[in-house]
Amino acid sequence: MDSLDNGRLKPHFGMNGGYGPLSYAKNSSYQGGVLESAKVIIEEEITTKLDISTNSFCIADFGCSTGNNSFPAMHTIIEAIKRKHESSDLKTPEFLVFLNDVVSNDFNTLFRSLPPHRDYNVAAVPGDFHGRLLPRSSINFGYSSWSLHWLTEVPKAVADRDSPAWNGGEIFYCRERREVYEAYLRQFERDLETFLKCRAVEMVEGGIMALLIPGVPEFWDPRKEFTVVSTVELLRSSLVDMSKKGRLSDSKLESLNFPHYFPTPQELSAILQKSLNFSIQRMEILKTETFLNAQGHASCFRAVHQTMLTHHLGAEIMDELFDSYEKKLAASLAFAKPDNDRTLVHIAILKRKIV
Amino acid sequence: MDSLDNGRLKPHFGMNGGYGPLSYAKNSSYQGGVLESAKVIIEEEITTKLDISTNSFCIADFGCSTGNNSFPAMHTIIEAIKRKHESSDLKTPEFLVFLNDVVSNDFNTLFRSLPPHRDYNVAAVPGDFHGRLLPRSSINFGYSSWSLHWLTEVPKAVADRDSPAWNGGEIFYCRERREVYEAYLRQFERDLETFLKCRAVEMVEGGIMALLIPGVPEFWDPRKEFTVVSTVELLRSSLVDMSKKGRLSDSKLESLNFPHYFPTPQELSAILQKSLNFSIQRMEILKTETFLNAQGHASCFRAVHQTMLTHHLGAEIMDELFDSYEKKLAASLAFAKPDNDRTLVHIAILKRKIV
Repeated sequence: MDSLDNGRLKPHFGMNGGYGPLSYAKNSSYQGGVLESAKVIIEEEITTKLDISTNSFCIADFGCSTGNNSFPAMHTIIEAIKRKHESSDLKTPEFLVFLNDVVSNDFNTLFRSLPPHRDYNVAAVPGDFHGRLLPRSSINFGYSSWSLHWLTEVPKAVADRDSPAWNGGEIFYCRERREVYEAYLRQFERDLETFLKCRAVEMVEGGIMALLIPGVPEFWDPRKEFTVVSTVELLRSSLVDMSKKGRLSDSKLESLNFPHYFPTPQELSAILQKSLNFSIQRMEILKTETFLNAQGHASCFRAVHQTMLTHHLGAEIMDELFDSYEKKLAASLAFAKPDNDRTLVHIAILKRKIV
Repeated sequence: MDSLDNGRLKPHFGMNGGYGPLSYAKNSSYQGGVLESAKVIIEEEITTKLDISTNSFCIADFGCSTGNNSFPAMHTIIEAIKRKHESSDLKTPEFLVFLNDVVSNDFNTLFRSLPPHRDYNVAAVPGDFHGRLLPRSSINFGYSSWSLHWLTEVPKAVADRDSPAWNGGEIFYCRERREVYEAYLRQFERDLETFLKCRAVEMVEGGIMALLIPGVPEFWDPRKEFTVVSTVELLRSSLVDMSKKGRLSDSKLESLNFPHYFPTPQELSAILQKSLNFSIQRMEILKTETFLNAQGHASCFRAVHQTMLTHHLGAEIMDELFDSYEKKLAASLAFAKPDNDRTLVHIAILKRKIV
């Protein structure tokens, strides 16, 4: 296996666990709308392209978190497969769903949230999905939603003072700083390629994978519009304020870089087309309204990023940071209307090539 | 699948989680010695009887708890299989280990305890192992240690005032109360048969299963010797004392029955021989010294039973109960010497019949 120590990576990654007011479980409803628009596409692809001759049918969700967005997706996939079997007069197969996330994920909450009357068994797979996790040719359908924008690490050049891509003082990329931007894009490309190589081994030939990846358009007007990238920029502004007040050391702020990348449609398509093992069956942009009101968005952002931010900056400043962030969101003209949100969600349907 | 709602069962079963002083992780070293004596038998059976022609090799541990006894067992099994491949000049297969326990088990602690340099991937399977958990013909080697003595429920007749097996005032069985004893034995038999039926579907033909089940001899002298059954009897004595002091209501004590059965060699052998799907390759009694000193034993007993006892009796009396229990253990003549312990551990090596 390529990397069996992958379970140890990323102790500071992972969403907030449990069911409390700051939990991911209570603050991730934004994904519900995305699944709604992805549903028709996934159902069509299963109906027209999925091989259904197997007895046991294995599905894997890479990046399941505590399950509240995973369970409806698994239900959609399984129902579509069952309908296909019924319409072909075939016996319904048994389903096993592998639910994967990093070791530090709250799997206890995941298990306690399992739908009681589901018609599939479950196995949780701890570890980084950039390494091998599952047996060869064991997965018939792969799924990953809102996970592949997490990089394995901040690009090394970005954190290197001697590099032209040094990003000191900033916490994310923007297109104007070309070296930083390129370093982030290359890291995303490497990570996605590694993901696809591992899945190519684990998926059966002819198996289908649905990837939902948040992204941005080629252009947007930052004075009137915003994206998920802009929200990080606004958090930086809160951090700079706190640094000026002495609530946060300059060195801590300087060493922070968000480990994400949000590809444009062209960028994502170019990377996926290079895969030797998967063919693109379909790529679309899903209608999405990820932005809630300022309070809802701040809570959601906190549920997703608190573990990582606490690791870098310490737990003691979190309340103040997110208070400030929420105020900035509420005061921003660009963020005033949900319609100004230009964040995209890509859906890519890939098929494991038959060799 | 037979029972997909099985994940909901037994919310009050399961060992104490975490790593604290009362955790199962810190109080279950008694199993280490058992594995040591089981090791040679397991290695011999793998060398002589296991089919090794597969590419991916799946192992399942039914009742893994937080892993500290599971990981050494999985290591033993995998090393023996690797040696067999090497000596046959075959390429080492990839290993996937399914770790199963009830939904309420502390899987977060399990995952955080995973050996960092292991050469197998892991998938955790939540649910009662008396139901279907895994795909058909997916498991090459099954393992279960110190788990099958947990019954799915207290035998109904034992809790029924109108039954001749009514066990009011007692909390466990003894041979002298024949109806109670028979009700417990029949429940154990039904549960073990259900376990075997589910595993028969999940295991590959020719696959091997090693079951380690605590038990008792046909006879022992309770004045000079003790077994795991006697330790429950001693706990009852502490509960009766507390009930007399008004610290515990009579009705609570009356409704408590331990959901365990510890078979004799003859009983276990008779049940296993009836299986249509598995053939007994080997049955032995392992040398064991399960009894630690009074303090160690009380801590271990608490780590295993606290969840179940709290469910029945309430959390507030636990400290007092286990203080009293430890004092009784320390004062008992029978328990004074570890050599007086007549508790057994059975090891049964079963092979999935080829049909």
